[in-house]
Amino acid sequence: MNYTHTIPPQTGAAFELKKGNTLTVLDPRGQQVSDMVLFNKHDLKEKISSGKTMDFEESILLSTGNFLWSNRSNKMMEIKADTNGRNDFLLAPCSPETFQIMYNESGYHPSCLENLHLNLKSFGIEIDDIPTAFNIFMNVQFDEKGRLKVLPPTSKPGDLVRFTAEMDLIVGLTACSAEDSNGGTFKPIHYVITEGDGF
Amino acid sequence: MNYTHTIPPQTGAAFELKKGNTLTVLDPRGQQVSDMVLFNKHDLKEKISSGKTMDFEESILLSTGNFLWSNRSNKMMEIKADTNGRNDFLLAPCSPETFQIMYNESGYHPSCLENLHLNLKSFGIEIDDIPTAFNIFMNVQFDEKGRLKVLPPTSKPGDLVRFTAEMDLIVGLTACSAEDSNGGTFKPIHYVITEGDGF
Repeated sequence: MNYTHTIPPQTGAAFELKKGNTLTVLDPRGQQVSDMVLFNKHDLKEKISSGKTMDFEESILLSTGNFLWSNRSNKMMEIKADTNGRNDFLLAPCSPETFQIMYNESGYHPSCLENLHLNLKSFGIEIDDIPTAFNIFMNVQFDEKGRLKVLPPTSKPGDLVRFTAEMDLIVGLTACSAEDSNGGTFKPIHYVITEGDGF
Repeated sequence: MNYTHTIPPQTGAAFELKKGNTLTVLDPRGQQVSDMVLFNKHDLKEKISSGKTMDFEESILLSTGNFLWSNRSNKMMEIKADTNGRNDFLLAPCSPETFQIMYNESGYHPSCLENLHLNLKSFGIEIDDIPTAFNIFMNVQFDEKGRLKVLPPTSKPGDLVRFTAEMDLIVGLTACSAEDSNGGTFKPIHYVITEGDGF
């Protein structure tokens, strides 16, 4: 039986995922974003790249059948299932400065960047090494002029995205901390690791 | 008088740009892309970020009046003028693997990634540290489904983009090496550094 891990609201997790194994990221309550970053376990300078992924996949939007690529032009993951169908790979993880600059928050605010770093630092990853994340369930709309608007996720309770690892990975994953990205409330994220393709 | 530097076809350059000074990138013959990356001169771990820039500027497309932001949420440059008006910040610099994977090139092919690294390494910048570039004059079209298509630049001979530095910078700049991005031919790029806002 596969254990379901819970990432509490506005926190994160980091873990290893072996090549060939499957990570399922679930939104148990709906309308909750999860930022994901990937590193080559055997050489942390190789990491997920939005620029390389959009180039090779020839798309801004990524879903079932697409691969996530590294800065060294290697496949890191394949998206095997996506019951919601809307993810984002344009915007960087929310950070303390996101809330200061965009939302005029003067006090402390939890953020995905801090939560990714808190969990990844034990693997030797520094905050400056964290790249633009693949933002699971995030609903960033764009128009023909390129203008961006962050809307609440379209994910319903139980929606999931399933990934298989194309190399041994260190994965960082959050339950996103930004009001605007999550329909105004903060919910947990669940994840399950299974051997093989998970079916 | 300000000296006009020439970047020969399929090569690159790297140089310092002081805070408050202006960089003008010119396309002397038209239809030629120039990839640009930026690093904080005093701390190379701070660099240009497509994810942070699109987040703060709320746009995929960037032109006059927009800022280019760092991974630490600081402004690195302001775009002060853009006579062409179409640039790209989605796609990573073309690399040897771009030509192998996307164009089935088996032999050597010059690339922006190699040319950026060749010129930036004397400043202590490694190839894995080179992020997604701001691709001046690059014409990447997207539709409502996010599908991407690289078209020839719309730039005419003499078109220019002018940037002022918001911090002391190390700049990497290329005359792009990819057939598809440059209307099938490789041309030089010119650049001029001026003190103050350049006017």
